[in-house]
Amino acid sequence: MTPGPAVPRPFRRRSEGGFLELLDQTRLPGRVVHLPLSNAAQVAEAIRSLRVRGAPAIGLAAAHGVALEAEAALSAGADEEAFLMRVGRALDELLATRPTGANLSACLAEMRAVLEGGRGLPLPEQVVRLVERATALEADDAAMCRAIGEAGSDLIPRAGAVVLTHCNAGALATGGIGTALAPVYVAREMGISVRVLACEARPVLQGSRLTAWELDRAGIPVEVIPDSAAGSFMADGQVDLVLVGADRIAANGDTANKIGTYSLAVLAAHHGIPFHVAAPRTTFDLSLRDGRHMVIEERDGDEVRRGLGRLTAPRGVPVRNPAFDVTPAHLVTGFITEQGVVHPPFAPPAPADGRGNPSPPAPEETP
Amino acid sequence: MTPGPAVPRPFRRRSEGGFLELLDQTRLPGRVVHLPLSNAAQVAEAIRSLRVRGAPAIGLAAAHGVALEAEAALSAGADEEAFLMRVGRALDELLATRPTGANLSACLAEMRAVLEGGRGLPLPEQVVRLVERATALEADDAAMCRAIGEAGSDLIPRAGAVVLTHCNAGALATGGIGTALAPVYVAREMGISVRVLACEARPVLQGSRLTAWELDRAGIPVEVIPDSAAGSFMADGQVDLVLVGADRIAANGDTANKIGTYSLAVLAAHHGIPFHVAAPRTTFDLSLRDGRHMVIEERDGDEVRRGLGRLTAPRGVPVRNPAFDVTPAHLVTGFITEQGVVHPPFAPPAPADGRGNPSPPAPEETP
Repeated sequence: MTPGPAVPRPFRRRSEGGFLELLDQTRLPGRVVHLPLSNAAQVAEAIRSLRVRGAPAIGLAAAHGVALEAEAALSAGADEEAFLMRVGRALDELLATRPTGANLSACLAEMRAVLEGGRGLPLPEQVVRLVERATALEADDAAMCRAIGEAGSDLIPRAGAVVLTHCNAGALATGGIGTALAPVYVAREMGISVRVLACEARPVLQGSRLTAWELDRAGIPVEVIPDSAAGSFMADGQVDLVLVGADRIAANGDTANKIGTYSLAVLAAHHGIPFHVAAPRTTFDLSLRDGRHMVIEERDGDEVRRGLGRLTAPRGVPVRNPAFDVTPAHLVTGFITEQGVVHPPFAPPAPADGRGNPSPPAPEETP
Repeated sequence: MTPGPAVPRPFRRRSEGGFLELLDQTRLPGRVVHLPLSNAAQVAEAIRSLRVRGAPAIGLAAAHGVALEAEAALSAGADEEAFLMRVGRALDELLATRPTGANLSACLAEMRAVLEGGRGLPLPEQVVRLVERATALEADDAAMCRAIGEAGSDLIPRAGAVVLTHCNAGALATGGIGTALAPVYVAREMGISVRVLACEARPVLQGSRLTAWELDRAGIPVEVIPDSAAGSFMADGQVDLVLVGADRIAANGDTANKIGTYSLAVLAAHHGIPFHVAAPRTTFDLSLRDGRHMVIEERDGDEVRRGLGRLTAPRGVPVRNPAFDVTPAHLVTGFITEQGVVHPPFAPPAPADGRGNPSPPAPEETP
């Protein structure tokens, strides 16, 4: 159930030292730099600045951040009141880092429940429970990735098929072998050759910097294309299947994902190419009926204007930089989950847990 | 008929010194650098390396390059045989710089005809004829841009309308006020406010670097968006009209233009947004029945991989970098030309001139 040795991991908990060894994804592909993070503020900074990204990995890193903060509070000799206040503040800071992904709030809701459920226990035991839950969330995510890969590998039409993907929904975005890339890894394990076309994903270029890097390391053939070339490759018959991840999926199947996903979905529909969204249950937000009320993070225009070290737009000209878009459900051929390929509607809106964090029920297979 | 003082020019012939003062567009928007070019090889290098780009401007720069070479041959004391050989080689070198745009071959066909028509005349007179023809081609282009602007300004639905454009088909791409941007400039002169959304146009970012720069200088409101965000802005109702230029248009209306144009055309059709191509007669190649045999230049992968000064894809991973795509005619609402808004088919294939350079007949208005 664990990724093979060639599949990179976005972070690794080092229990000896009580720190999270985090691969700084902003330095890829040029440099492989690991950062030792030892408290929640450092994890929050890493999330905000995209050192770790991808909705599942953000949620897991945040969970580890809560555990790190608890360990730090214990080491500092906090009493229970100070401990709860400090860990509670960490939960709040981490929850505020990025608004669009559902996994962050789902993971933090679980950590908050552990914190509240442990009140009155000796602090060392409370800390152990938090560490264990963060570790379990990561193991769960790895298992869900594996199951997504197995369900999705059936969708690959033939050996030599070309999968187009956007941004990075691979191992670097999860606790396992990825979501959109999981079927590719599983197909490879089964001896089925697959080629990947990786859209760059401007402005931060997670496709060319991260997807290309992790697939190349894993020995899977990958070619990078500018985002704007995807339609042309589809028209030329060079794309068999589109696989993307998701940051939040509403009950009706409307899907928030990296900016550009919506355009790819329209293009895939125009060319009659299957377009699948791969995501674990933590990405489904069944408190939302549809995509209309999803919060779309707009990031700093300088990410576009000078994100590559050189000024690429005039200083005084405004830049619009929405990080995500919403793809309506009718453009999605199917949702690849750990329970198989499913279709909306997934379930009636579930009751929230009182803090705006919906419980993350599994999507239901439609007949 | 000349662009206003705020509208930049891609080059300016300095007859005193016998050189072409060329704005190095690879340095924009950070630096405004002019290069003095004095022979055809320098002009060819400037075209290949995108210091001057845009199908009309490439054709005009090449015509000036032929004239510069003729002047240099005269100054060097060449006899007619050496003169004709040297200028003939310049024509060949310039013609080979970039394959997709139609204007380059159309302009060079005119220069070659002047060269051949002048045989036997005193060399100073031959040189004058070449210089005059290059200058006339530039003036013609400026007049065509103005006429395109006047024809296209009627398509702007209302004050405050938002025009989405791709790459740069503005003043920097022509001898005048541009093609796709000409209606915007003319509308502004008429007191009609227009806002522009400029797609970046990866990999070379002519949209964010050049379109944003020239519109900002001209005082026209412009916002830059990543290419992949165009669909999302269309879905949000934030785009009234798409205007793009063209590099080559076949008799049936199939249009080669900057990579990404095809995706925008599909997206515009999906959202019911008018999608117009603006181009002068030199862009129409009526020797081609349709887009199937258009030559699409594939440029070096390093333009994507490290075009911005930083490695953005792993060294060993292949990059696909087609510079253009072909938009089928049925996705184009109309063609804005110096003769008004026209629709295909434009004319039966015209006889070629024997060197593969079709004469550039004007498109015919369909009833």
